Amino acid sequence: MAEATDCTMALDPGVRDAARQRLASVRGHVEGIVRMLERDDVYCVDVLRQLKAVSGALDKVGDAVLRSHLHHHVTNAQARGDADVIVDELMDILKYR
Amino acid sequence: MAEATDCTMALDPGVRDAARQRLASVRGHVEGIVRMLERDDVYCVDVLRQLKAVSGALDKVGDAVLRSHLHHHVTNAQARGDADVIVDELMDILKYR
Amino acid sequence: MAEATDCTMALDPGVRDAARQRLASVRGHVEGIVRMLERDDVYCVDVLRQLKAVSGALDKVGDAVLRSHLHHHVTNAQARGDADVIVDELMDILKYR
Amino acid sequence: MAEATDCTMALDPGVRDAARQRLASVRGHVEGIVRMLERDDVYCVDVLRQLKAVSGALDKVGDAVLRSHLHHHVTNAQARGDADVIVDELMDILKYR
Repeated sequence: MAEATDCTMALDPGVRDAARQRLASVRGHVEGIVRMLERDDVYCVDVLRQLKAVSGALDKVGDAVLRSHLHHHVTNAQARGDADVIVDELMDILKYR
Repeated sequence: MAEATDCTMALDPGVRDAARQRLASVRGHVEGIVRMLERDDVYCVDVLRQLKAVSGALDKVGDAVLRSHLHHHVTNAQARGDADVIVDELMDILKYR
Repeated sequence: MAEATDCTMALDPGVRDAARQRLASVRGHVEGIVRMLERDDVYCVDVLRQLKAVSGALDKVGDAVLRSHLHHHVTNAQARGDADVIVDELMDILKYR
Repeated sequence: MAEATDCTMALDPGVRDAARQRLASVRGHVEGIVRMLERDDVYCVDVLRQLKAVSGALDKVGDAVLRSHLHHHVTNAQARGDADVIVDELMDILKYR
């Protein structure tokens, strides 16, 4: 099983399911902020707090995907022969993270 | 009009409308990533790139709200008499930003 | 005393002293990493951990200076009449923070 | 030579030299801010700008060390047999980065 995952570059199925569920919840959170912004008495700082909470939730999804990527696709890149590309695209994503 | 806005602590109407529209677009972007995660061949790095784009879009919304808050509610806090609270809640939001 | 500070745009003396002492300690920490990098068996991750610790220490200095700036110079900017400049330079600093 | 580097966990010599030189310059920059903080008319925002510049310089050093670590020690971790440890310590460093 691990073998099969290691051979492809697809996101690990378990991580993918968890990420999808968390993102569905993030979408709900964003919808909540959109509704919040329909009220003409909404306080700036409350909006900023909600945006920060959503960013934190996105970061958690990203951390899980990144960990899986490191485990399944980065730690074996020399053996697979694409280490240069793998490192370049990783550095690009980590910039300003 | 500016006067009225300065007297209340509500988010500026123009900024609020723009934020709502941008967030509706963020919600669509998140939905796109949820669908992307339904494909069993999705590549980790493509997901990470999309998550980063969404984070960037959220930051832009946050920047606009923050700028408006600074302009309408922070720069007059001493006159209004709630400077301590205003600074505390601002520092709390800016932490780990 | 607070009055005097509020009239000028100088950094509060107490915050300034504390910042100088903390930064002197940051300089010592950086020197330690420079020496660490003279060893040919230094491990990448140990360097990254030290760099992260220094960044965290710098952020603490920045937070103290920012809090003081908000308190003494931003919350009274409308009364002083330079709110636009104050907000612009603040947003510029907070970008990518 | 590259072989030798790949077998050990030491930071690549070229990257190490460059990092040491950049950090020596960062130390000088920090000393400059310490001196700046001795002036009683120093402006908060000027300090914040300098701190931000130092943080940016530290990030560049960190990026170079991270890239080297990914290239020499992470992309071959499965072959070496320490992938779990390598991924754990990497995720720990990237948190709140």
